[in-house]
Amino acid sequence: MLETLKELSTKSPKKIVLLVMDGVGGLPREAGGKTELETARTPNLDALAASAECGVHLPIGFGITPGSAPGHLALFGYDPLAYPIGRGVVAATGVAFPMKPGDVAARLNFATLDASGKISDRRAGRIPTEKCAQLCELLKAVSIKGVEVSVRPVKDYRAVVVFRGKGLSDKVEDTDPQIMGVPPLDPKATEQQAAHTAEVAKEFVAQARKILASQTPANGILLRGFAELPHIPSLPELYKLSPVALAVYPDYKGVARLVGMDVVDDLADLDAQAAALPTVWGSHDFFFIHHKYTDSKGEDGDFDAKVKEIEKVDAFLPKVLAMKPDIIIVTGDHSTPAAAKAHTSHPVPFLIAGDGVRSDGTAKFAERTCARGIWGTISGQVLLRTALAYTGKLKKFGA
Amino acid sequence: MLETLKELSTKSPKKIVLLVMDGVGGLPREAGGKTELETARTPNLDALAASAECGVHLPIGFGITPGSAPGHLALFGYDPLAYPIGRGVVAATGVAFPMKPGDVAARLNFATLDASGKISDRRAGRIPTEKCAQLCELLKAVSIKGVEVSVRPVKDYRAVVVFRGKGLSDKVEDTDPQIMGVPPLDPKATEQQAAHTAEVAKEFVAQARKILASQTPANGILLRGFAELPHIPSLPELYKLSPVALAVYPDYKGVARLVGMDVVDDLADLDAQAAALPTVWGSHDFFFIHHKYTDSKGEDGDFDAKVKEIEKVDAFLPKVLAMKPDIIIVTGDHSTPAAAKAHTSHPVPFLIAGDGVRSDGTAKFAERTCARGIWGTISGQVLLRTALAYTGKLKKFGA
Repeated sequence: MLETLKELSTKSPKKIVLLVMDGVGGLPREAGGKTELETARTPNLDALAASAECGVHLPIGFGITPGSAPGHLALFGYDPLAYPIGRGVVAATGVAFPMKPGDVAARLNFATLDASGKISDRRAGRIPTEKCAQLCELLKAVSIKGVEVSVRPVKDYRAVVVFRGKGLSDKVEDTDPQIMGVPPLDPKATEQQAAHTAEVAKEFVAQARKILASQTPANGILLRGFAELPHIPSLPELYKLSPVALAVYPDYKGVARLVGMDVVDDLADLDAQAAALPTVWGSHDFFFIHHKYTDSKGEDGDFDAKVKEIEKVDAFLPKVLAMKPDIIIVTGDHSTPAAAKAHTSHPVPFLIAGDGVRSDGTAKFAERTCARGIWGTISGQVLLRTALAYTGKLKKFGA
Repeated sequence: MLETLKELSTKSPKKIVLLVMDGVGGLPREAGGKTELETARTPNLDALAASAECGVHLPIGFGITPGSAPGHLALFGYDPLAYPIGRGVVAATGVAFPMKPGDVAARLNFATLDASGKISDRRAGRIPTEKCAQLCELLKAVSIKGVEVSVRPVKDYRAVVVFRGKGLSDKVEDTDPQIMGVPPLDPKATEQQAAHTAEVAKEFVAQARKILASQTPANGILLRGFAELPHIPSLPELYKLSPVALAVYPDYKGVARLVGMDVVDDLADLDAQAAALPTVWGSHDFFFIHHKYTDSKGEDGDFDAKVKEIEKVDAFLPKVLAMKPDIIIVTGDHSTPAAAKAHTSHPVPFLIAGDGVRSDGTAKFAERTCARGIWGTISGQVLLRTALAYTGKLKKFGA
């Protein structure tokens, strides 16, 4: 299908906005109650929904709870099952580390180990990004024969390590046991071909442990998501798009870069995103705008705070509409109900508004109203191609 | 899936009608307004919709704007991506030219060239079919060593050329540059194996140019859609059907022939189609009735005229229902909104009426009412098999 879409794709001057409220799908706080979206006061989103085609989407498929990277891949029009992206790659591309084919990246979390080497804090007291950067500098002293090691700070206690060398493989297990009170795991190869990489990672952990021994609270590291660069055909390559991402968080910039988007850096919040939009409007035709905190508050289980984040995006929406996009999609990459404190598989509401849509009069932008919209329940992977078709970016198939 | 359906298929005396209003799906004339179907007075269609199962379908897939041939293939139950049909084949089979495997057909449009050889009219002033036939007679003088050349008139300025000989290939580019003020392109091979065919086409164009030199206004030709016969398993082969097409336009008769339908010739309009239906009713069990002008008026951007064409089909419908088909499907092969003046990717409304359906009480046969019908949004490729199942033409799968 991507091959067919690529053949049909054609340049058009029309502009598409994809506004993503991360994890926006929710659940009622109590049985019979309202979801976060149903609770939020969202006059702008509701007016847009009334003029739009609405529905709910499954980003990956029925019963699949999407991680952040595959959830976004789906919104960018890819089948996430066909393009697995490891956490390490998301982290590396998120901080603009220039990964090459053959490199293996892993997320590196600074942690606190007790005197017996057991994990007492998996996040090292959530050290600030500045401290994280200092520790990454110290880790430059690591030296492994035949392997180039790069460590970069990401955010707070999170960093990324990239190994470059011959014969590396990403078939290595996490060292993070995901619980406290036990020592970090050894990096184990899950396939014979990764034995060398597992040794490299083990050596890296051992040297890091020595270097960090005197640090407080970050005296240890945990590695997760060993990953090689996937080969994803880019949006410019597939659809002749000039896409740009306006995201605050590194991981989302990372996924955007993986599919060939330009990325606007140093955006602190929605105000900065709104201010940046006009500066890239003329030079691009696809605008991915990402808001993280709907997901964060859902993960925290804070229903009211998630409602407030939705309302912030509602207040932000007119600034996007002022640019007069030809088509705007508003949706999420998955559900993160506060009631679940986690991502879930529930369908995510969406709207497609703009020129040449069959307005369905949906009264409110929310899960159950959109589910009764004109599109019903569909795959999240088809939203982008629908927008491309509506903006004349896909030619007719066949005679 | 086709293999499974073939194994399950069984003969039954029940009769299925597929009534296609070409390009019937539409868009509101202005934001907040009604579509062509929503505007049309269609008491017969609306009464049938109320007694039917309704929904909207995507002929090929989300975001894909169907051409006429693939749109129809979908309605006939095939995946159009699996059976690409070139324009040349549609044209040749449309005029009942008996193409054989290995033949290469191309659409031939008569055009006007100026003194310097540049195209001044891509349609040669839309010469009448009679003139077209005379010019095709003249082109019989073309002689190419080792290749049998056949030229047949289609309609107006449109004709078709078929090359028969050893080692021919359809991997040849169009000579029609799609714009005026430039000369026709040379037929270029897109793959090495087509080099011989490109030479044959070049020779044909050169001889045609000489033969037509003194003609006015049709002194040149443009070739499009070089194509070989695809191998499509036929409806009789797959489903033991005895299908027949009642269509006015050659192209639709062509697609019908490709899937093994009998074709009633010399039908000028809906009246003729209505008169012909009883003559083939006893001998067949699947009736494809095609109305072209909903699409034509949509392509013209003439909203009101498209509304009138829909109303004509509404008035025609009782003549079909009088035959008492066991199942009737009414739908389109794609959308051609007058607002777009072109095919679009928007879903197409459908109804399935007759014995053993779960009437959903849809109040009007139109896009947004049907989208909220009992079927919601589905693939157009499943409509036929649903009708086959409803008429006992597909046995139970498994014990």
